[in-house]
Amino acid sequence: MKAGFVGVGQMGGPMAANLASNFGVTAHCRDEATRQYLEASGVITTANMQDIADSEVIFLCLPSGSIVDQVLFGPNGLAEVLRPGTIVVDTSTVEYSTTISLSEKLASLGLKFVDAPVSGMRARAENGTLTVMCGGEQELVECLQPLFSSMASNIIYMGPVGSGQLTKLINQLLFDINAAALAEILPLAVKLGLDPTKVGDVVNSGTGRSYASEFFIPNVLNGVFDKGYPMEHAYKDLISGAEISVQNQIPTPVLAAATATYQAALLNGHGAKDKGGMIRVFEDLLDVRFRARNAEGDSK
Amino acid sequence: MKAGFVGVGQMGGPMAANLASNFGVTAHCRDEATRQYLEASGVITTANMQDIADSEVIFLCLPSGSIVDQVLFGPNGLAEVLRPGTIVVDTSTVEYSTTISLSEKLASLGLKFVDAPVSGMRARAENGTLTVMCGGEQELVECLQPLFSSMASNIIYMGPVGSGQLTKLINQLLFDINAAALAEILPLAVKLGLDPTKVGDVVNSGTGRSYASEFFIPNVLNGVFDKGYPMEHAYKDLISGAEISVQNQIPTPVLAAATATYQAALLNGHGAKDKGGMIRVFEDLLDVRFRARNAEGDSK
Repeated sequence: MKAGFVGVGQMGGPMAANLASNFGVTAHCRDEATRQYLEASGVITTANMQDIADSEVIFLCLPSGSIVDQVLFGPNGLAEVLRPGTIVVDTSTVEYSTTISLSEKLASLGLKFVDAPVSGMRARAENGTLTVMCGGEQELVECLQPLFSSMASNIIYMGPVGSGQLTKLINQLLFDINAAALAEILPLAVKLGLDPTKVGDVVNSGTGRSYASEFFIPNVLNGVFDKGYPMEHAYKDLISGAEISVQNQIPTPVLAAATATYQAALLNGHGAKDKGGMIRVFEDLLDVRFRARNAEGDSK
Repeated sequence: MKAGFVGVGQMGGPMAANLASNFGVTAHCRDEATRQYLEASGVITTANMQDIADSEVIFLCLPSGSIVDQVLFGPNGLAEVLRPGTIVVDTSTVEYSTTISLSEKLASLGLKFVDAPVSGMRARAENGTLTVMCGGEQELVECLQPLFSSMASNIIYMGPVGSGQLTKLINQLLFDINAAALAEILPLAVKLGLDPTKVGDVVNSGTGRSYASEFFIPNVLNGVFDKGYPMEHAYKDLISGAEISVQNQIPTPVLAAATATYQAALLNGHGAKDKGGMIRVFEDLLDVRFRARNAEGDSK
Protein backbone atom coordinates (compact mmCIF):
# COMPACT_ATOMS: atom_id res chain seq x y z
CA MET A 1 0.00 0.00 0.00
CA LYS A 2 1.31 3.47 -0.91
CA ALA A 3 1.07 6.08 1.82
CA GLY A 4 1.30 9.87 1.82
CA PHE A 5 2.20 11.89 4.90
CA VAL A 6 1.52 15.52 5.80
CA GLY A 7 2.83 16.90 9.10
CA VAL A 8 6.34 15.55 9.68
CA GLY A 9 7.11 17.43 12.90
CA GLN A 10 8.04 16.17 16.40
CA MET A 11 5.62 13.24 16.19
CA GLY A 12 4.84 12.88 12.48
CA GLY A 13 8.52 12.80 11.44
CA PRO A 14 9.44 9.58 13.26
CA MET A 15 5.99 8.10 12.47
CA ALA A 16 6.59 8.59 8.72
CA ALA A 17 10.11 7.19 9.08
CA ASN A 18 8.83 4.04 10.82
CA LEU A 19 6.04 3.62 8.28
CA ALA A 20 8.66 3.71 5.48
CA SER A 21 10.37 0.62 6.87
CA ASN A 22 7.37 -1.46 5.66
CA PHE A 23 5.56 0.70 3.07
CA GLY A 24 6.28 3.21 0.32
CA VAL A 25 5.85 6.66 1.85
CA THR A 26 5.85 10.08 0.21
CA ALA A 27 5.87 12.97 2.66
CA HIS A 28 5.24 16.64 2.22
CA CYS A 29 8.29 18.40 3.68
CA ARG A 30 9.79 21.83 3.31
CA ASP A 31 12.36 21.75 6.12
CA GLU A 32 15.84 20.73 4.96
CA ALA A 33 16.97 18.95 8.15
CA THR A 34 13.72 16.98 8.29
CA ARG A 35 14.03 16.15 4.59
CA GLN A 36 17.47 14.63 5.15
CA TYR A 37 16.26 12.69 8.21
CA LEU A 38 13.24 11.32 6.30
CA GLU A 39 15.16 10.41 3.15
CA ALA A 40 17.75 8.56 5.25
CA SER A 41 14.80 6.50 6.54
CA GLY A 42 13.57 5.71 3.02
CA VAL A 43 10.80 8.32 2.82
CA ILE A 44 10.39 10.13 -0.52
CA THR A 45 9.86 13.84 0.12
CA THR A 46 8.24 16.59 -1.89
CA ALA A 47 7.78 20.31 -1.35
CA ASN A 48 4.49 20.24 -3.30
CA MET A 49 1.75 18.73 -1.15
CA GLN A 50 -0.45 17.73 -4.06
CA ASP A 51 2.33 15.36 -5.24
CA ILE A 52 1.21 12.85 -2.60
CA ALA A 53 -2.28 12.63 -4.10
CA ASP A 54 -1.74 9.25 -5.80
CA SER A 55 -1.33 7.51 -2.39
CA GLU A 56 -3.99 5.01 -1.29
CA VAL A 57 -3.75 6.25 2.30
CA ILE A 58 -2.97 9.77 3.47
CA PHE A 59 -1.71 10.24 7.04
CA LEU A 60 -2.06 13.64 8.67
CA CYS A 61 -0.22 14.62 11.87
CA LEU A 62 -0.92 18.31 12.40
CA PRO A 63 -1.15 20.74 15.35
CA SER A 64 -4.86 21.58 15.19
CA GLY A 65 -8.21 20.95 13.55
CA SER A 66 -8.10 24.23 11.66
CA ILE A 67 -4.75 23.29 10.08
CA VAL A 68 -6.16 19.86 9.15
CA ASP A 69 -9.09 21.64 7.54
CA GLN A 70 -6.73 23.97 5.68
CA VAL A 71 -4.56 21.09 4.40
CA LEU A 72 -7.62 19.23 3.12
CA PHE A 73 -9.95 21.99 1.96
CA GLY A 74 -7.86 25.18 1.73
CA PRO A 75 -6.35 26.57 -1.50
CA ASN A 76 -4.18 23.90 -3.20
CA GLY A 77 -5.52 21.47 -0.57
CA LEU A 78 -5.60 17.72 -0.87
CA ALA A 79 -9.36 17.33 -1.28
CA GLU A 80 -9.27 18.77 -4.78
CA VAL A 81 -6.75 16.17 -6.03
CA LEU A 82 -7.41 12.98 -4.02
CA ARG A 83 -9.10 10.17 -5.98
CA PRO A 84 -12.41 8.84 -4.63
CA GLY A 85 -11.80 5.88 -2.36
CA THR A 86 -8.60 7.31 -0.88
CA ILE A 87 -8.42 6.84 2.90
CA VAL A 88 -7.54 9.89 5.01
CA VAL A 89 -6.16 8.95 8.43
CA ASP A 90 -5.95 11.87 10.85
CA THR A 91 -3.49 11.13 13.66
CA SER A 92 -3.71 14.74 14.88
CA THR A 93 -5.50 15.61 18.10
CA VAL A 94 -8.57 17.50 16.92
CA GLU A 95 -11.84 18.67 18.49
CA TYR A 96 -14.58 16.04 18.24
CA SER A 97 -16.97 18.43 16.44
CA THR A 98 -14.28 19.32 13.85
CA THR A 99 -13.52 15.64 13.28
CA ILE A 100 -17.17 14.88 12.57
CA SER A 101 -17.47 17.78 10.12
CA LEU A 102 -14.19 16.88 8.35
CA SER A 103 -15.42 13.32 7.98
CA GLU A 104 -18.73 14.48 6.48
CA LYS A 105 -17.06 16.84 4.02
CA LEU A 106 -14.68 14.07 2.88
CA ALA A 107 -17.52 11.56 2.54
CA SER A 108 -19.39 13.95 0.25
CA LEU A 109 -16.34 13.77 -2.07
CA GLY A 110 -16.21 9.95 -1.93
CA LEU A 111 -13.20 9.96 0.40
CA LYS A 112 -12.88 7.68 3.44
CA PHE A 113 -11.86 8.86 6.89
CA VAL A 114 -10.43 7.40 10.09
CA ASP A 115 -9.56 9.45 13.17
CA ALA A 116 -6.54 7.95 14.87
CA PRO A 117 -5.00 10.29 17.46
CA VAL A 118 -1.88 8.96 19.10
CA SER A 119 -0.53 9.15 22.61
CA GLY A 120 3.06 8.89 23.74
CA MET A 121 5.80 11.49 23.48
CA ARG A 122 8.47 11.71 20.72
CA ALA A 123 10.54 8.87 22.19
CA ARG A 124 7.66 6.44 21.70
CA ALA A 125 7.04 7.81 18.20
CA GLU A 126 10.70 7.01 17.40
CA ASN A 127 10.46 3.51 18.90
CA GLY A 128 7.21 2.79 17.08
CA THR A 129 5.50 2.10 20.40
CA LEU A 130 2.74 4.71 20.34
CA THR A 131 -0.86 4.08 21.38
CA VAL A 132 -3.36 4.74 18.56
CA MET A 133 -7.06 5.20 19.31
CA CYS A 134 -9.11 4.64 16.16
CA GLY A 135 -12.57 5.81 15.14
CA GLY A 136 -14.22 4.88 11.83
CA GLU A 137 -15.61 1.89 9.93
CA GLN A 138 -14.25 -1.25 11.56
CA GLU A 139 -13.20 -2.93 8.26
CA LEU A 140 -11.32 0.20 7.27
CA VAL A 141 -9.40 0.25 10.56
CA GLU A 142 -8.65 -3.47 10.18
CA CYS A 143 -7.22 -2.95 6.70
CA LEU A 144 -4.99 -0.17 8.11
CA GLN A 145 -3.70 -2.43 10.90
CA PRO A 146 -0.34 -3.23 9.20
CA LEU A 147 0.36 0.47 8.68
CA PHE A 148 -0.54 1.36 12.27
CA SER A 149 1.63 -1.53 13.48
CA SER A 150 4.66 0.13 11.92
CA MET A 151 4.15 3.13 14.20
CA ALA A 152 2.36 1.86 17.29
CA SER A 153 2.41 -1.07 19.67
CA ASN A 154 -1.09 -0.49 21.04
CA ILE A 155 -3.86 -0.09 18.46
CA ILE A 156 -7.35 0.24 19.91
CA TYR A 157 -10.52 0.28 17.83
CA MET A 158 -13.03 2.45 19.69
CA GLY A 159 -16.09 2.75 17.39
CA PRO A 160 -17.50 5.09 14.74
CA VAL A 161 -15.77 8.23 13.43
CA GLY A 162 -14.81 10.56 16.27
CA SER A 163 -14.44 7.76 18.84
CA GLY A 164 -10.66 7.90 18.65
CA GLN A 165 -10.68 11.63 19.40
CA LEU A 166 -13.22 11.15 22.20
CA THR A 167 -11.14 8.44 23.85
CA LYS A 168 -7.99 10.51 23.73
CA LEU A 169 -9.98 13.46 25.06
CA ILE A 170 -11.26 11.46 28.06
CA ASN A 171 -7.67 10.66 29.00
CA GLN A 172 -6.53 14.27 28.49
CA LEU A 173 -9.36 15.71 30.57
CA LEU A 174 -8.46 13.45 33.50
CA PHE A 175 -4.83 14.51 33.14
CA ASP A 176 -5.86 18.19 33.07
CA ILE A 177 -8.02 17.83 36.18
CA ASN A 178 -5.28 15.97 38.06
CA ALA A 179 -2.82 18.74 37.12
CA ALA A 180 -5.26 21.49 38.15
CA ALA A 181 -5.74 19.70 41.50
CA LEU A 182 -1.99 19.87 42.13
CA ALA A 183 -2.00 23.55 41.12
CA GLU A 184 -4.32 24.53 43.96
CA ILE A 185 -3.49 21.94 46.66
CA LEU A 186 0.33 22.14 46.64
CA PRO A 187 0.55 25.93 47.21
CA LEU A 188 -2.03 25.52 50.00
CA ALA A 189 0.35 23.04 51.66
CA VAL A 190 3.18 25.58 51.46
CA LYS A 191 0.96 28.38 52.79
CA LEU A 192 0.19 26.17 55.82
CA GLY A 193 3.91 25.80 56.48
CA LEU A 194 4.69 22.36 55.07
CA ASP A 195 7.96 21.57 53.30
CA PRO A 196 7.38 21.21 49.53
CA THR A 197 9.89 18.40 48.96
CA LYS A 198 8.46 16.31 51.81
CA VAL A 199 4.90 16.92 50.62
CA GLY A 200 5.94 15.83 47.12
CA ASP A 201 7.43 12.61 48.52
CA VAL A 202 4.30 11.83 50.52
CA VAL A 203 1.98 12.46 47.56
CA ASN A 204 4.06 10.49 45.07
CA SER A 205 4.31 7.52 47.42
CA GLY A 206 0.67 7.80 48.49
CA THR A 207 -2.90 7.50 47.29
CA GLY A 208 -2.81 11.09 45.97
CA ARG A 209 -0.32 10.22 43.24
CA SER A 210 -1.11 10.43 39.55
CA TYR A 211 0.81 10.50 36.30
CA ALA A 212 0.45 14.29 36.63
CA SER A 213 2.00 14.33 40.13
CA GLU A 214 4.84 12.01 39.12
CA PHE A 215 5.63 14.11 36.05
CA PHE A 216 5.10 17.63 37.38
CA ILE A 217 6.07 17.60 41.09
CA PRO A 218 9.81 17.01 40.53
CA ASN A 219 9.82 19.65 37.77
CA VAL A 220 7.83 22.23 39.74
CA LEU A 221 10.07 21.71 42.80
CA ASN A 222 12.90 22.89 40.55
CA GLY A 223 10.94 25.66 38.83
CA VAL A 224 11.00 23.78 35.52
CA PHE A 225 7.96 24.24 33.25
CA ASP A 226 9.18 23.26 29.79
CA LYS A 227 9.23 19.46 29.88
CA GLY A 228 5.64 18.94 28.71
CA TYR A 229 3.37 20.25 25.97
CA PRO A 230 2.70 24.03 26.24
CA MET A 231 -0.66 24.92 27.77
CA GLU A 232 -1.59 27.29 24.93
CA HIS A 233 -1.43 24.39 22.45
CA ALA A 234 -3.25 21.90 24.67
CA TYR A 235 -6.14 24.26 25.40
CA LYS A 236 -8.12 22.75 22.49
CA ASP A 237 -8.87 19.75 24.73
CA LEU A 238 -10.66 21.98 27.22
CA ILE A 239 -12.65 23.61 24.41
CA SER A 240 -13.72 20.13 23.29
CA GLY A 241 -14.63 19.14 26.83
CA ALA A 242 -16.72 22.27 27.37
CA GLU A 243 -18.46 21.87 23.98
CA ILE A 244 -19.36 18.26 24.70
CA SER A 245 -20.63 19.18 28.15
CA VAL A 246 -22.92 22.00 27.02
CA GLN A 247 -24.13 20.44 23.79
CA ASN A 248 -25.05 17.14 25.45
CA GLN A 249 -26.33 18.68 28.70
CA ILE A 250 -23.77 16.67 30.70
CA PRO A 251 -22.70 18.36 33.96
CA THR A 252 -18.93 18.38 34.52
CA PRO A 253 -18.38 20.40 37.72
CA VAL A 254 -14.81 19.29 38.45
CA LEU A 255 -13.75 19.79 34.83
CA ALA A 256 -15.36 23.25 34.81
CA ALA A 257 -13.36 24.24 37.90
CA ALA A 258 -10.15 22.85 36.42
CA THR A 259 -10.85 24.73 33.18
CA ALA A 260 -11.15 27.99 35.14
CA THR A 261 -7.69 27.40 36.63
CA TYR A 262 -6.27 26.58 33.20
CA GLN A 263 -7.80 29.79 31.78
CA ALA A 264 -6.41 31.84 34.66
CA ALA A 265 -2.97 30.45 33.83
CA LEU A 266 -3.35 31.46 30.17
CA LEU A 267 -4.64 34.92 31.15
CA ASN A 268 -1.69 35.39 33.51
CA GLY A 269 0.76 34.76 30.67
CA HIS A 270 1.75 31.16 31.41
CA GLY A 271 0.58 29.70 28.07
CA ALA A 272 4.09 28.78 26.96
CA LYS A 273 4.60 26.70 30.13
CA ASP A 274 3.50 23.07 30.38
CA LYS A 275 0.53 22.18 32.58
CA GLY A 276 2.74 22.21 35.67
CA GLY A 277 2.63 25.99 35.13
CA MET A 278 -0.98 26.12 36.35
CA ILE A 279 0.51 26.14 39.86
CA ARG A 280 1.67 29.71 39.23
CA VAL A 281 -1.95 30.89 39.48
CA PHE A 282 -2.27 29.81 43.11
CA GLU A 283 1.37 30.45 44.00
CA ASP A 284 0.86 34.08 42.98
CA LEU A 285 -2.50 34.37 44.79
CA LEU A 286 -1.03 32.96 48.02
CA ASP A 287 2.40 34.56 47.57
CA VAL A 288 4.28 31.29 48.03
CA ARG A 289 6.40 29.00 45.85
CA PHE A 290 6.28 25.19 45.84
CA ARG A 291 10.06 24.92 45.36
CA ALA A 292 12.80 22.72 46.76
CA ARG A 293 15.20 24.61 49.05
CA ASN A 294 18.02 24.29 46.54
CA ALA A 295 15.87 24.88 43.44
CA GLU A 296 17.84 26.49 40.63
CA GLY A 297 15.06 27.32 38.21
CA ASP A 298 12.35 29.98 37.95
CA SER A 299 11.34 31.55 41.25
CA LYS A 300 9.85 34.77 39.90
CA MET B 1 9.82 2.57 77.15
CA LYS B 2 6.37 1.40 78.25
CA ALA B 3 3.55 2.06 75.78
CA GLY B 4 -0.22 2.08 76.10
CA PHE B 5 -2.55 1.61 73.12
CA VAL B 6 -6.18 2.60 72.61
CA GLY B 7 -7.92 1.69 69.37
CA VAL B 8 -6.88 -1.81 68.34
CA GLY B 9 -9.06 -2.17 65.22
CA GLN B 10 -8.15 -2.83 61.58
CA MET B 11 -5.05 -0.64 61.75
CA GLY B 12 -4.34 -0.25 65.47
CA GLY B 13 -4.44 -4.00 66.16
CA PRO B 14 -1.45 -4.95 64.01
CA MET B 15 0.34 -1.70 64.95
CA ALA B 16 0.10 -2.62 68.66
CA ALA B 17 1.21 -6.16 67.87
CA ASN B 18 4.30 -4.94 65.99
CA LEU B 19 5.12 -2.44 68.73
CA ALA B 20 5.05 -5.30 71.26
CA SER B 21 7.90 -7.06 69.48
CA ASN B 22 10.26 -4.33 70.77
CA PHE B 23 8.48 -2.63 73.67
CA GLY B 24 6.17 -3.43 76.56
CA VAL B 25 2.63 -2.63 75.40
CA THR B 26 -0.63 -2.57 77.32
CA ALA B 27 -3.71 -2.19 75.12
CA HIS B 28 -7.27 -1.35 75.94
CA CYS B 29 -9.36 -4.12 74.37
CA ARG B 30 -12.86 -5.44 74.91
CA ASP B 31 -13.18 -7.73 71.89
CA GLU B 32 -12.33 -11.38 72.64
CA ALA B 33 -10.90 -12.29 69.21
CA THR B 34 -8.72 -9.18 69.19
CA ARG B 35 -7.62 -9.90 72.78
CA GLN B 36 -6.40 -13.36 71.78
CA TYR B 37 -4.63 -12.00 68.69
CA LEU B 38 -2.90 -9.26 70.71
CA GLU B 39 -1.87 -11.51 73.59
CA ALA B 40 -0.40 -14.01 71.11
CA SER B 41 1.76 -11.09 69.92
CA GLY B 42 2.91 -10.25 73.46
CA VAL B 43 0.54 -7.35 74.14
CA ILE B 44 -0.95 -7.13 77.63
CA THR B 45 -4.66 -6.32 77.36
CA THR B 46 -7.10 -4.72 79.75
CA ALA B 47 -10.83 -3.98 79.57
CA ASN B 48 -10.35 -0.90 81.80
CA MET B 49 -8.82 1.92 79.77
CA GLN B 50 -7.43 3.77 82.78
CA ASP B 51 -5.18 0.74 83.49
CA ILE B 52 -2.82 1.95 80.75
CA ALA B 53 -2.23 5.25 82.54
CA ASP B 54 1.20 4.34 83.87
CA SER B 55 2.65 4.14 80.32
CA GLU B 56 5.23 6.73 79.23
CA VAL B 57 3.71 6.92 75.74
CA ILE B 58 0.05 6.47 74.83
CA PHE B 59 -0.79 5.59 71.23
CA LEU B 60 -4.29 6.31 69.92
CA CYS B 61 -5.64 4.86 66.68
CA LEU B 62 -9.32 5.84 66.53
CA PRO B 63 -11.94 6.50 63.84
CA SER B 64 -12.50 10.23 64.39
CA GLY B 65 -11.50 13.36 66.25
CA SER B 66 -14.60 13.30 68.41
CA ILE B 67 -13.79 9.76 69.60
CA VAL B 68 -10.21 10.83 70.34
CA ASP B 69 -11.63 13.72 72.37
CA GLN B 70 -13.98 11.34 74.20
CA VAL B 71 -11.17 8.87 75.02
CA LEU B 72 -8.99 11.66 76.41
CA PHE B 73 -11.47 14.05 78.02
CA GLY B 74 -14.77 12.15 78.32
CA PRO B 75 -16.03 10.43 81.49
CA ASN B 76 -13.40 7.97 82.77
CA GLY B 77 -11.09 9.38 80.08
CA LEU B 78 -7.32 9.19 80.05
CA ALA B 79 -6.63 12.85 80.77
CA GLU B 80 -7.80 12.52 84.37
CA VAL B 81 -5.29 9.74 85.14
CA LEU B 82 -2.22 10.38 82.93
CA ARG B 83 0.84 11.70 84.78
CA PRO B 84 2.31 15.02 83.64
CA GLY B 85 5.02 14.44 81.04
CA THR B 86 3.25 11.50 79.44
CA ILE B 87 3.40 11.65 75.63
CA VAL B 88 0.14 11.17 73.73
CA VAL B 89 0.71 10.05 70.12
CA ASP B 90 -2.40 10.27 67.97
CA THR B 91 -2.09 8.04 64.90
CA SER B 92 -5.76 8.61 64.02
CA THR B 93 -6.75 10.74 61.05
CA VAL B 94 -8.30 13.81 62.67
CA GLU B 95 -9.36 17.28 61.48
CA TYR B 96 -6.53 19.80 61.74
CA SER B 97 -8.57 22.16 63.95
CA THR B 98 -9.44 19.31 66.36
CA THR B 99 -5.79 18.26 66.54
CA ILE B 100 -4.72 21.76 67.49
CA SER B 101 -7.39 22.02 70.20
CA LEU B 102 -6.58 18.53 71.60
CA SER B 103 -2.93 19.48 71.76
CA GLU B 104 -3.72 22.70 73.64
CA LYS B 105 -5.99 20.96 76.14
CA LEU B 106 -3.32 18.31 76.81
CA ALA B 107 -0.58 20.95 77.18
CA SER B 108 -2.66 22.74 79.83
CA LEU B 109 -2.52 19.48 81.85
CA GLY B 110 1.26 19.12 81.37
CA LEU B 111 0.84 16.35 78.79
CA LYS B 112 2.84 16.17 75.55
CA PHE B 113 1.33 15.56 72.14
CA VAL B 114 2.41 14.35 68.71
CA ASP B 115 0.07 13.91 65.75
CA ALA B 116 1.21 10.98 63.67
CA PRO B 117 -1.45 9.84 61.17
CA VAL B 118 -0.48 6.80 59.14
CA SER B 119 -1.06 5.80 55.57
CA GLY B 120 -1.16 2.32 54.09
CA MET B 121 -3.91 -0.26 54.38
CA ARG B 122 -4.10 -3.15 56.87
CA ALA B 123 -1.56 -5.25 54.97
CA ARG B 124 1.12 -2.60 55.50
CA ALA B 125 0.08 -2.23 59.14
CA GLU B 126 0.67 -5.99 59.54
CA ASN B 127 4.05 -5.84 57.78
CA GLY B 128 5.15 -2.84 59.82
CA THR B 129 5.69 -0.86 56.60
CA LEU B 130 3.30 2.05 57.15
CA THR B 131 4.10 5.68 56.36
CA VAL B 132 3.85 7.94 59.45
CA MET B 133 3.63 11.73 59.04
CA CYS B 134 4.58 13.42 62.31
CA GLY B 135 3.78 16.83 63.73
CA GLY B 136 5.06 18.11 67.08
CA GLU B 137 8.29 19.10 68.82
CA GLN B 138 11.18 17.69 66.80
CA GLU B 139 13.04 16.24 69.84
CA LEU B 140 9.86 14.50 70.93
CA VAL B 141 9.42 12.90 67.51
CA GLU B 142 13.08 11.87 67.49
CA CYS B 143 12.74 10.16 70.86
CA LEU B 144 9.71 8.27 69.52
CA GLN B 145 11.63 7.09 66.45
CA PRO B 146 12.33 3.54 67.78
CA LEU B 147 8.63 3.06 68.55
CA PHE B 148 7.51 4.34 65.15
CA SER B 149 10.13 2.10 63.50
CA SER B 150 8.39 -0.94 64.94
CA MET B 151 5.26 -0.03 62.97
CA ALA B 152 6.40 1.95 59.95
CA SER B 153 9.13 1.94 57.31
CA ASN B 154 8.70 5.58 56.32
CA ILE B 155 8.70 8.11 59.17
CA ILE B 156 8.52 11.74 58.04
CA TYR B 157 8.88 14.69 60.39
CA MET B 158 6.75 17.49 58.94
CA GLY B 159 6.87 20.33 61.51
CA PRO B 160 4.87 21.65 64.49
CA VAL B 161 1.73 20.01 65.94
CA GLY B 162 -0.88 19.48 63.24
CA SER B 163 1.66 19.18 60.40
CA GLY B 164 1.26 15.40 60.28
CA GLN B 165 -2.49 15.75 59.87
CA LEU B 166 -2.08 18.51 57.27
CA THR B 167 0.31 16.43 55.21
CA LYS B 168 -1.96 13.41 55.24
CA LEU B 169 -4.86 15.72 54.37
CA ILE B 170 -3.02 17.13 51.32
CA ASN B 171 -2.57 13.58 50.01
CA GLN B 172 -6.19 12.65 50.74
CA LEU B 173 -7.59 15.76 49.05
CA LEU B 174 -5.67 14.98 45.87
CA PHE B 175 -6.97 11.40 46.01
CA ASP B 176 -10.55 12.67 46.50
CA ILE B 177 -10.29 15.08 43.56
CA ASN B 178 -8.80 12.40 41.30
CA ALA B 179 -11.66 10.07 42.29
CA ALA B 180 -14.30 12.78 41.71
CA ALA B 181 -12.78 13.44 38.26
CA LEU B 182 -13.29 9.78 37.34
CA ALA B 183 -16.86 9.96 38.68
CA GLU B 184 -17.90 12.58 36.14
CA ILE B 185 -15.62 11.83 33.16
CA LEU B 186 -16.10 8.05 32.88
CA PRO B 187 -19.93 8.14 32.64
CA LEU B 188 -19.56 10.94 30.05
CA ALA B 189 -17.43 8.56 27.97
CA VAL B 190 -20.14 5.89 28.17
CA LYS B 191 -22.87 8.41 27.30
CA LEU B 192 -20.89 9.29 24.15
CA GLY B 193 -20.85 5.63 23.14
CA LEU B 194 -17.37 4.51 24.17
CA ASP B 195 -16.69 1.05 25.56
CA PRO B 196 -15.96 1.25 29.33
CA THR B 197 -13.32 -1.49 29.41
CA LYS B 198 -11.37 0.05 26.52
CA VAL B 199 -11.61 3.52 28.06
CA GLY B 200 -10.31 2.09 31.35
CA ASP B 201 -7.35 0.51 29.53
CA VAL B 202 -6.49 3.76 27.74
CA VAL B 203 -6.69 5.82 30.94
CA ASN B 204 -4.68 3.39 33.05
CA SER B 205 -1.95 3.18 30.42
CA GLY B 206 -2.06 6.91 29.70
CA THR B 207 -1.37 10.31 31.17
CA GLY B 208 -4.83 10.36 32.80
CA ARG B 209 -3.94 7.58 35.21
CA SER B 210 -3.76 8.01 38.96
CA TYR B 211 -3.71 5.81 42.04
CA ALA B 212 -7.46 6.45 42.08
CA SER B 213 -7.92 5.25 38.49
CA GLU B 214 -5.75 2.17 39.03
CA PHE B 215 -7.64 1.25 42.21
CA PHE B 216 -11.20 2.15 41.27
CA ILE B 217 -11.57 1.53 37.50
CA PRO B 218 -11.22 -2.27 37.68
CA ASN B 219 -13.61 -2.35 40.65
CA VAL B 220 -16.18 -0.02 39.10
CA LEU B 221 -16.10 -2.00 35.82
CA ASN B 222 -17.28 -4.94 37.93
CA GLY B 223 -19.73 -2.98 40.04
CA VAL B 224 -17.60 -3.45 43.16
CA PHE B 225 -17.64 -0.62 45.70
CA ASP B 226 -16.46 -2.21 48.95
CA LYS B 227 -12.70 -2.52 48.51
CA GLY B 228 -11.81 0.91 49.92
CA TYR B 229 -12.69 3.00 52.95
CA PRO B 230 -16.42 3.95 53.08
CA MET B 231 -17.19 7.48 51.92
CA GLU B 232 -19.22 8.30 55.03
CA HIS B 233 -16.15 7.73 57.25
CA ALA B 234 -13.72 9.56 54.96
CA TYR B 235 -15.91 12.66 54.69
CA LYS B 236 -14.00 14.24 57.59
CA ASP B 237 -11.15 15.01 55.16
CA LEU B 238 -13.44 17.17 53.05
CA ILE B 239 -14.67 18.99 56.16
CA SER B 240 -11.04 19.72 57.05
CA GLY B 241 -10.29 20.88 53.51
CA ALA B 242 -13.28 23.22 53.46
CA GLU B 243 -12.48 24.60 56.93
CA ILE B 244 -8.88 25.32 55.96
CA SER B 245 -9.97 26.97 52.73
CA VAL B 246 -12.52 29.33 54.31
CA GLN B 247 -10.59 30.13 57.47
CA ASN B 248 -7.39 30.97 55.59
CA GLN B 249 -9.11 32.63 52.61
CA ILE B 250 -7.46 30.15 50.24
CA PRO B 251 -9.51 29.51 47.07
CA THR B 252 -9.86 25.80 46.19
CA PRO B 253 -12.18 25.69 43.15
CA VAL B 254 -11.41 22.13 42.03
CA LEU B 255 -11.68 20.79 45.58
CA ALA B 256 -14.99 22.62 46.04
CA ALA B 257 -16.40 20.99 42.90
CA ALA B 258 -15.13 17.56 43.98
CA THR B 259 -16.67 18.10 47.42
CA ALA B 260 -20.06 18.80 45.80
CA THR B 261 -19.87 15.46 43.96
CA TYR B 262 -18.87 13.69 47.18
CA GLN B 263 -21.80 15.29 49.01
CA ALA B 264 -24.20 14.31 46.22
CA ALA B 265 -23.01 10.72 46.62
CA LEU B 266 -23.67 10.83 50.37
CA LEU B 267 -27.10 12.44 49.85
CA ASN B 268 -27.99 9.76 47.29
CA GLY B 269 -27.32 7.03 49.84
CA HIS B 270 -23.88 5.86 48.69
CA GLY B 271 -22.05 6.62 51.96
CA ALA B 272 -21.31 2.95 52.68
CA LYS B 273 -19.54 2.60 49.31
CA ASP B 274 -15.88 3.47 48.83
CA LYS B 275 -14.96 6.57 46.81
CA GLY B 276 -15.42 4.65 43.57
CA GLY B 277 -19.11 4.97 44.46
CA MET B 278 -19.08 8.69 43.57
CA ILE B 279 -19.51 7.53 39.98
CA ARG B 280 -23.10 6.57 40.82
CA VAL B 281 -24.01 10.26 40.99
CA PHE B 282 -23.22 10.84 37.30
CA GLU B 283 -24.20 7.35 36.17
CA ASP B 284 -27.69 8.01 37.55
CA LEU B 285 -27.88 11.51 36.06
CA LEU B 286 -26.87 10.26 32.61
CA ASP B 287 -28.68 6.93 32.91
CA VAL B 288 -25.61 4.87 32.00
CA ARG B 289 -23.30 2.42 33.76
CA PHE B 290 -19.52 2.28 33.45
CA ARG B 291 -19.49 -1.54 33.59
CA ALA B 292 -17.65 -4.29 31.76
CA ARG B 293 -19.91 -6.33 29.47
CA ASN B 294 -19.60 -9.38 31.69
CA ALA B 295 -19.75 -7.49 34.99
CA GLU B 296 -21.24 -9.59 37.76
CA GLY B 297 -21.64 -7.00 40.49
CA ASP B 298 -24.05 -4.17 41.21
CA SER B 299 -25.79 -2.75 38.15
CA LYS B 300 -28.77 -1.19 39.87
